[in-house]
Amino acid sequence: MPDDAAAREVLEDARSLAHAGEWAKLVSLVTSLHPADLAELVLDLGESNRRELLAHLPTDVVGQLFEFVEDDELRDLIRGVGVDELPAVLEEVEDDVVADVIQQLEPEQQAETLAQLDRGDDVAELLQYREESAGGLMSRGFVTLNQDISVQQAIDYLRVLRPPSDRAYYLYIIDVDGRLQGTVSIRDLIVSAPRTPLAEITRRDVHAVTTATDQEEAARTLQKYNLLAVPVVNEEGVLEGVMTADDLIDVLQEEATEDMYRMVGLDEDERVFSPVRTSVRRRLPWMLVNLITAFVAAATVGLFDETIARAAVLALFMPVVAGMGGNAGTQTATIAVRSIALGDLDVSDVFRACRKEIMVAMANGLAIGLTAGLGAYLWKQNEALSIVIAAALFLNTCAATMAGVLIPLGLKAMKVDPALAANIFVTTITDVMGFIFFLGLASLAIEQIN
Amino acid sequence: MPDDAAAREVLEDARSLAHAGEWAKLVSLVTSLHPADLAELVLDLGESNRRELLAHLPTDVVGQLFEFVEDDELRDLIRGVGVDELPAVLEEVEDDVVADVIQQLEPEQQAETLAQLDRGDDVAELLQYREESAGGLMSRGFVTLNQDISVQQAIDYLRVLRPPSDRAYYLYIIDVDGRLQGTVSIRDLIVSAPRTPLAEITRRDVHAVTTATDQEEAARTLQKYNLLAVPVVNEEGVLEGVMTADDLIDVLQEEATEDMYRMVGLDEDERVFSPVRTSVRRRLPWMLVNLITAFVAAATVGLFDETIARAAVLALFMPVVAGMGGNAGTQTATIAVRSIALGDLDVSDVFRACRKEIMVAMANGLAIGLTAGLGAYLWKQNEALSIVIAAALFLNTCAATMAGVLIPLGLKAMKVDPALAANIFVTTITDVMGFIFFLGLASLAIEQIN
Repeated sequence: MPDDAAAREVLEDARSLAHAGEWAKLVSLVTSLHPADLAELVLDLGESNRRELLAHLPTDVVGQLFEFVEDDELRDLIRGVGVDELPAVLEEVEDDVVADVIQQLEPEQQAETLAQLDRGDDVAELLQYREESAGGLMSRGFVTLNQDISVQQAIDYLRVLRPPSDRAYYLYIIDVDGRLQGTVSIRDLIVSAPRTPLAEITRRDVHAVTTATDQEEAARTLQKYNLLAVPVVNEEGVLEGVMTADDLIDVLQEEATEDMYRMVGLDEDERVFSPVRTSVRRRLPWMLVNLITAFVAAATVGLFDETIARAAVLALFMPVVAGMGGNAGTQTATIAVRSIALGDLDVSDVFRACRKEIMVAMANGLAIGLTAGLGAYLWKQNEALSIVIAAALFLNTCAATMAGVLIPLGLKAMKVDPALAANIFVTTITDVMGFIFFLGLASLAIEQIN
Repeated sequence: MPDDAAAREVLEDARSLAHAGEWAKLVSLVTSLHPADLAELVLDLGESNRRELLAHLPTDVVGQLFEFVEDDELRDLIRGVGVDELPAVLEEVEDDVVADVIQQLEPEQQAETLAQLDRGDDVAELLQYREESAGGLMSRGFVTLNQDISVQQAIDYLRVLRPPSDRAYYLYIIDVDGRLQGTVSIRDLIVSAPRTPLAEITRRDVHAVTTATDQEEAARTLQKYNLLAVPVVNEEGVLEGVMTADDLIDVLQEEATEDMYRMVGLDEDERVFSPVRTSVRRRLPWMLVNLITAFVAAATVGLFDETIARAAVLALFMPVVAGMGGNAGTQTATIAVRSIALGDLDVSDVFRACRKEIMVAMANGLAIGLTAGLGAYLWKQNEALSIVIAAALFLNTCAATMAGVLIPLGLKAMKVDPALAANIFVTTITDVMGFIFFLGLASLAIEQIN
């Protein structure tokens, strides 16, 4: 069993050899690495060292790297390999990964590269699907069997076929028209008596998705039924491809990152060590949107500037009203966005969700309002002010919670990503509503406050 | 191939039969359902109907349900089955699931239930590990082989053993002391010539984790190397268990939910349709913490109450400074928390991360500050005020960004969850710093502003 510390040491040695330009030594060293580790090393190098190392590695080793990098790292790897070398390198790579690579190329390079690939047609077929659909994610590398053969005949067939992927756990039973009829797992094949007809061990409760199914829903199917792969069929039920657990895990991770990032107005491709220029370009647009919404909040306060001029003490409590509303709103929005992603909440649940959240908001709003009112009284000994604060916090907690439910569900109903800048919109509403409640009530009671 | 719409129809029929109390009809109907769907139906029923239906179902069917529910739904299912019936129901359930069930019971019930299980010892062994460790998550249901036998002998052995799980894709090669030496996949077994010695097709670059490894890291290992299962060894390298992809997918989903929720001060067990009382009890504590931090921000404003009394216009721009700082801070905190979870950022990267983020903050702060200053000038035609706003936004964007990096990394360095209430702390700092920058600068220029 390899030791993790030993693996790290190899990685360290490899780094120094690369920086010293000792390519022959380096190549013989890195052949012992797992492609996932080698990919990390390669991506960690500067651009010229990366190109140099990739040029020295055997093409099949380079090909494997493509299977172990994330989508946003593909471009660096492609640039390191060079477009001219791509066809040779991709020859033994799984077709779904090849399709991902092709998608990163310029249109004219796409056609050229496809033409040079043996399996260009398979890959071209995958490219016709939307990138975030089951069709865009699936691989055509699956094994089909006819249910009229026996277990031994199936084993003999597999021995000849030698399916390349070590992920071929399920075998697919299709009819003469290619329609999916059921699955047989390799485990069932191995534990059954050799002369058993395949039809007898075929499982017919298959959980297939269609090529148009969204990748997130496909991933949820895999998760719900504890599967290792999900078959993908077309509208006629003809088996078109298979999505494996490792691809769908990446989908779930990407979708979670996307939701977290979008909620605060970040691009889903943002990484902690993205180049500064890229990060600035990605973050600035939403910050400018946020600036506009902040001026809306400012204008709301502006409606009450005479009230504040009469009682500057009101300004002290503005951050309390805004902050508490923002917190209650983003809490609810976070629950709503995540629950939609996990399939626990849909547009049709809107009334049930609102009813629940408003009950929670009223209870919490009461507790928070009373506590804050008491705190304000102890601090400023002003009864009217304390009552205004308590009331404003109660009302704003309720408004914030409704915004937190309704904005993500509203976006979802409009077929927009429910996470899209949810926090920016929610905090704007809680700021605006909070100031109207607080300063509005204060205006009415200004004689008592001042 | 079953049709999704048809499955939904069965589910609908089942619901009405349950509500009508037609148990015999219902039981014969639901035997056609996948356990995952049946579990959904069962959990959807009211408590008394649920108990009734579970009592009418065969024990092995009830047992399967446990494998397809999430941790937070286990308790409802246990209550529905009844503690006395548990041992019979759990007899054929996988040991890791049984361990999860046992953990939900009261201490005295745990011992009693374990004593009645055939595999009580295996389960008791799993229970000794920390719940969120690889040991706490693994199953003892793995197949081991000796490398001195041939492929055909291995197949013959599997035919006799008939490993119960349909997830037995990897077989584990161990030495006489039980130490893990490598893996053989069933696929390799089937495509190799029957007389091949197992040693020849054994893969030795195994990516194992130890029983103490955190479940999140174990999941990352599975994801990085595109595996379907990860073996778990003790400190001597002895194989103790196996974690499968379906369990680790659940881990990744739970951890993502946990991070999203904790950032805004939510309990990770919160669900959109949790009972109102539970939600109130879970959310209120962090809201009270947030209230205290909001009063800190209020006290900061209080330092400048005379300045505000002289120029009430300042109150208008307080939400702009606080809102923009909060947005910049939570953006950075979100990136930091997620990058730590994905293994892209660690405490040792703190200087690199700060350097990058401060560059981004200065560029964005400059753009936002100038735009806001211009906006303020067009609105209020006050040069000093505009300059103060521009400067405060620039400074607060930088401070917010640093807080966004340093708080999650600081929590991580203190071995606390980096996500813990990150947004609440970050927005407090950005409120306080923002008001100090804005109102402090305004105090200095108060003659020009008023």
